[in-house]
Amino acid sequence: MSKKLHRFQPVLDEIVATLRLQLGQGGTVASYIPALARVDARQFGIALRTCDGEEAGAGDFETPFSIQSVSKLFTLTLAMQRMGDALWERIGREPSGNPFNSLVQLENEQGKPRNPFINAGAIAVADRLVSQAKTKGGSAKTDILALMTSLCGERIDFDGEVAQSEADTGFRNVALANFMKSFGKIDNDVAEVLDTYFHQCALRMSCRQLARAAAFLCRDGAHPIAGEPEVTGERQTRRINSLMLTCGTYDAAGDVAFSIGLPCKSGVGGGIVAVVPDQLTLCVWSPALDATGNSLLGMKALELFVARTGLSVF
Amino acid sequence: MSKKLHRFQPVLDEIVATLRLQLGQGGTVASYIPALARVDARQFGIALRTCDGEEAGAGDFETPFSIQSVSKLFTLTLAMQRMGDALWERIGREPSGNPFNSLVQLENEQGKPRNPFINAGAIAVADRLVSQAKTKGGSAKTDILALMTSLCGERIDFDGEVAQSEADTGFRNVALANFMKSFGKIDNDVAEVLDTYFHQCALRMSCRQLARAAAFLCRDGAHPIAGEPEVTGERQTRRINSLMLTCGTYDAAGDVAFSIGLPCKSGVGGGIVAVVPDQLTLCVWSPALDATGNSLLGMKALELFVARTGLSVF
Amino acid sequence: MSKKLHRFQPVLDEIVATLRLQLGQGGTVASYIPALARVDARQFGIALRTCDGEEAGAGDFETPFSIQSVSKLFTLTLAMQRMGDALWERIGREPSGNPFNSLVQLENEQGKPRNPFINAGAIAVADRLVSQAKTKGGSAKTDILALMTSLCGERIDFDGEVAQSEADTGFRNVALANFMKSFGKIDNDVAEVLDTYFHQCALRMSCRQLARAAAFLCRDGAHPIAGEPEVTGERQTRRINSLMLTCGTYDAAGDVAFSIGLPCKSGVGGGIVAVVPDQLTLCVWSPALDATGNSLLGMKALELFVARTGLSVF
Amino acid sequence: MSKKLHRFQPVLDEIVATLRLQLGQGGTVASYIPALARVDARQFGIALRTCDGEEAGAGDFETPFSIQSVSKLFTLTLAMQRMGDALWERIGREPSGNPFNSLVQLENEQGKPRNPFINAGAIAVADRLVSQAKTKGGSAKTDILALMTSLCGERIDFDGEVAQSEADTGFRNVALANFMKSFGKIDNDVAEVLDTYFHQCALRMSCRQLARAAAFLCRDGAHPIAGEPEVTGERQTRRINSLMLTCGTYDAAGDVAFSIGLPCKSGVGGGIVAVVPDQLTLCVWSPALDATGNSLLGMKALELFVARTGLSVF
Repeated sequence: MSKKLHRFQPVLDEIVATLRLQLGQGGTVASYIPALARVDARQFGIALRTCDGEEAGAGDFETPFSIQSVSKLFTLTLAMQRMGDALWERIGREPSGNPFNSLVQLENEQGKPRNPFINAGAIAVADRLVSQAKTKGGSAKTDILALMTSLCGERIDFDGEVAQSEADTGFRNVALANFMKSFGKIDNDVAEVLDTYFHQCALRMSCRQLARAAAFLCRDGAHPIAGEPEVTGERQTRRINSLMLTCGTYDAAGDVAFSIGLPCKSGVGGGIVAVVPDQLTLCVWSPALDATGNSLLGMKALELFVARTGLSVF
Repeated sequence: MSKKLHRFQPVLDEIVATLRLQLGQGGTVASYIPALARVDARQFGIALRTCDGEEAGAGDFETPFSIQSVSKLFTLTLAMQRMGDALWERIGREPSGNPFNSLVQLENEQGKPRNPFINAGAIAVADRLVSQAKTKGGSAKTDILALMTSLCGERIDFDGEVAQSEADTGFRNVALANFMKSFGKIDNDVAEVLDTYFHQCALRMSCRQLARAAAFLCRDGAHPIAGEPEVTGERQTRRINSLMLTCGTYDAAGDVAFSIGLPCKSGVGGGIVAVVPDQLTLCVWSPALDATGNSLLGMKALELFVARTGLSVF
Repeated sequence: MSKKLHRFQPVLDEIVATLRLQLGQGGTVASYIPALARVDARQFGIALRTCDGEEAGAGDFETPFSIQSVSKLFTLTLAMQRMGDALWERIGREPSGNPFNSLVQLENEQGKPRNPFINAGAIAVADRLVSQAKTKGGSAKTDILALMTSLCGERIDFDGEVAQSEADTGFRNVALANFMKSFGKIDNDVAEVLDTYFHQCALRMSCRQLARAAAFLCRDGAHPIAGEPEVTGERQTRRINSLMLTCGTYDAAGDVAFSIGLPCKSGVGGGIVAVVPDQLTLCVWSPALDATGNSLLGMKALELFVARTGLSVF
Repeated sequence: MSKKLHRFQPVLDEIVATLRLQLGQGGTVASYIPALARVDARQFGIALRTCDGEEAGAGDFETPFSIQSVSKLFTLTLAMQRMGDALWERIGREPSGNPFNSLVQLENEQGKPRNPFINAGAIAVADRLVSQAKTKGGSAKTDILALMTSLCGERIDFDGEVAQSEADTGFRNVALANFMKSFGKIDNDVAEVLDTYFHQCALRMSCRQLARAAAFLCRDGAHPIAGEPEVTGERQTRRINSLMLTCGTYDAAGDVAFSIGLPCKSGVGGGIVAVVPDQLTLCVWSPALDATGNSLLGMKALELFVARTGLSVF
């Protein structure tokens, strides 16, 4: 890593030093599938990439983990690339005010998910990706891997065991998908859409890779590594950031905006990606989750980072 | 039919004469599956069987139709036979206040359906029947056919095309079943449970057969034909009748109790079974449905019957 | 009392003997207003009046208590007398599926209460009574007292202290009334409507008086004492009974229909009126309530009565 | 105004020129009270104040209007000044996902409003201000006027006619306040709390005055005019901005964040305050509202401003 990193490396080191003392205290590792349940809770990593390509990392920032819902950020990006504003005919852009996998609002709103970051919304995005891939004779799963690999500049893959476990136990997601299908809001076969969705959740990446992959969000959509072609346009990039801020951390989004003040997207694997527009993208990871399903130490790390650097969108 | 019928045959004839003039006016045939959509709306049948075994019928009372949700009455009966009060650990006994296939209440109440007559409740009953059948190495579908055949004294069968169509398009029911499964409220494989459920809905029976099959409900549970062994005990029989009154006609149950005042169970095939305790069981059928999903002319027929005979539980 | 009572007096005595042993065990006296909170929980009374005018009673059946929501039965009767079916433009006839004082359904249904027995519905009925009284220069409160006095053949009055306490603490009811007013579903001044409602809830009557006052419900609407003029027509009477069965005991209505099988209307004062059509009206009272807000021993008494006599509408 | 304004004055002039052509086309003036209903829809004003005290304005930016819900911004500020984090024991910080005056969520969450910008939340804030004022023998209304007058450096007052109209017709707000009171979440007399709330909504201010009054939000809480004492601390200021972004425009908050990307607080009088942190505060006003209750041209003005200047938090 470059010497320019003097600005942030000490901050990351300090955060790791502080939070290491709290490892294993509080929070619960996601246990709904065996492959997640057996992850060691006593891990913490943090990495960032600045808008001009510098990287820093501390703690377990090179350890790959299951990115789970953080993947929704990238499938949304892919769908916005492919479909532009037509995407929003099927998916809303409002916070849900309900747990991430609730069916209540979906019923009241005729099968149209509130936003692309609740499970229903991400499944609807997966359906759009399946349709888009079909028009070119391809597959949505291949498209997702291609995007991730391009963004990271290194090969990214699915964890097949995790994907299978999700499929075996994801009854709530099967319910959500069939429910939307009953409203005519899913075009493809439910099994195919869910196969895509379960695989995207099973992407394995490290903090370093995620910070890099999401770095287009802190540089107006420019490709993290090559700069071009742009991943998304400037206006679209801002919109993704705004969705992360208002909807990226489930039912805690308002609270996260209030206490951290950065666009974030979290996953039950314990990862969180955060963006400081025009400056840097950050990824934190620690498997133990708080009551809202967000990484307990991950959130603390973001609070420390914001307090220490004064970076915030507000 | 016996000459004792002088009391009711004229009433049924009069009802047929009155309602024939209204055939084809108003209401909509259920159209979500082709096999139901192509049924001729211009049909009306009515039949009854008294507690001492007399039968009467008029109009198209010998024409078989898809009994759909009327089947919930018989699967509930079967589950009560097999499990007694243990059944109620999984299923409530309260009106739902929501459409028959709503997921909202199910979510608020942790996957426990409000009552056995909404779809979720009937699917939960089917799951119980599958479990019960397995303990004896049998199949729930076979058990259902055996019960119906015994109650009617003649062979009853599923309509395979209808069952297949339900399976092909029943996304909402797939959602309901998986949703309950996600709460741990379905023990068996969802596909097996739904196969049972879709088949029970696809039972083909005539008004005459349904009035006979349900006749145990007007004679304290005694077998309609043989008298014994009893189908259900006296206390259980009253309870089934009470559930029909409070929950048997979806979101219109209060209104039906108010205007007709008899325990009823309806289906989207256009059939309705009604019970006058200690007197008779009635079945009406006409395929066109009102806005609440109940047979339009069927409900009118019941109102006429009640007005003409003064029979009501209140 | 007449000697004809041999049939039921022993049943009532036996119920009192059985339940006295359970007095003071379980249940909670309503405590939201002082005048209710200080009622001695160790009281139980039961009384009945047959359709031909015989009366029986046992236990504390002559002790007056606050009838609370049982009053909804009589204000509904009064409104049906005055307005006939026009009443139903403002009030539904369906079970609510929600607690008696919930605002959720009211919001979803544009301020139209589900039925006349939830608080919102009874307040809407009170609004209608206020309007009706105004057209004749009278007052709804006077009309209510006149009806109760006529039905009982003895002077009935409000408990002023209870009415005042209800007014002082009835924030939820103030909320319900103003909420309906915001939808244009209350015509009169909210304060005047609530004054009527709080007074009707504060009627003081004994089991004997309530069994007598409600006796028109077991005799097709004929006046309990005089026989004529009829209180309500036969058809209307049946409808009141059906509403009691489907909606009379709050969120427990389905369960009460299932286990007791009689039209009932309960109040948080611990009173319950039950009807066996064409036979008798029953009133039980015991102040301690179960979790659903119905009298704990009152419900047990009704179960014992039904089990012992075999009377049920089903 | 100072000559330094070259940067933004042309932008405001251009926006006025563009939107004037659309005045009177589409949107509806709030009509629930006469004083609002008779406002001429064909008005549009825009003003801003930079973090270093420069001001610019165009169109009807000096015309006073009823600020309505924009006032919630200032009463929240006052409550945060007085109570700090203790405020959040009574009020949440999450988007509501429901209309601004819904009671559903309030019921599900035991009377605790989702955030301070829905009506229930603002009424709860008013209750806190009443309590705070009482401890010093003062009045919440006086405190509010003192804050506004200090922030603007000129006398601000309530419109008595508007406040009276709100009181006469605000049944929904009376319902909300009594509902929270029934959960023990309002400490003071409902009438007193609502009197405060109806008056704060009736503040009359111009775009120039509002842009100035809210200018502490773009300068880390420093007093808009004097600089000190600070209105709120830096951390608190960021939090107010985040609440505006996630909850400030009712059910459209997600969409506004998506398309405009600035913290905003709107009112049904047609005013909207927007903040560009560390740069400027903006106020737009036009009385005709869109379907979400936000000013139609106001929102268009903000979109134009953001597109023209590239300012956004994302």
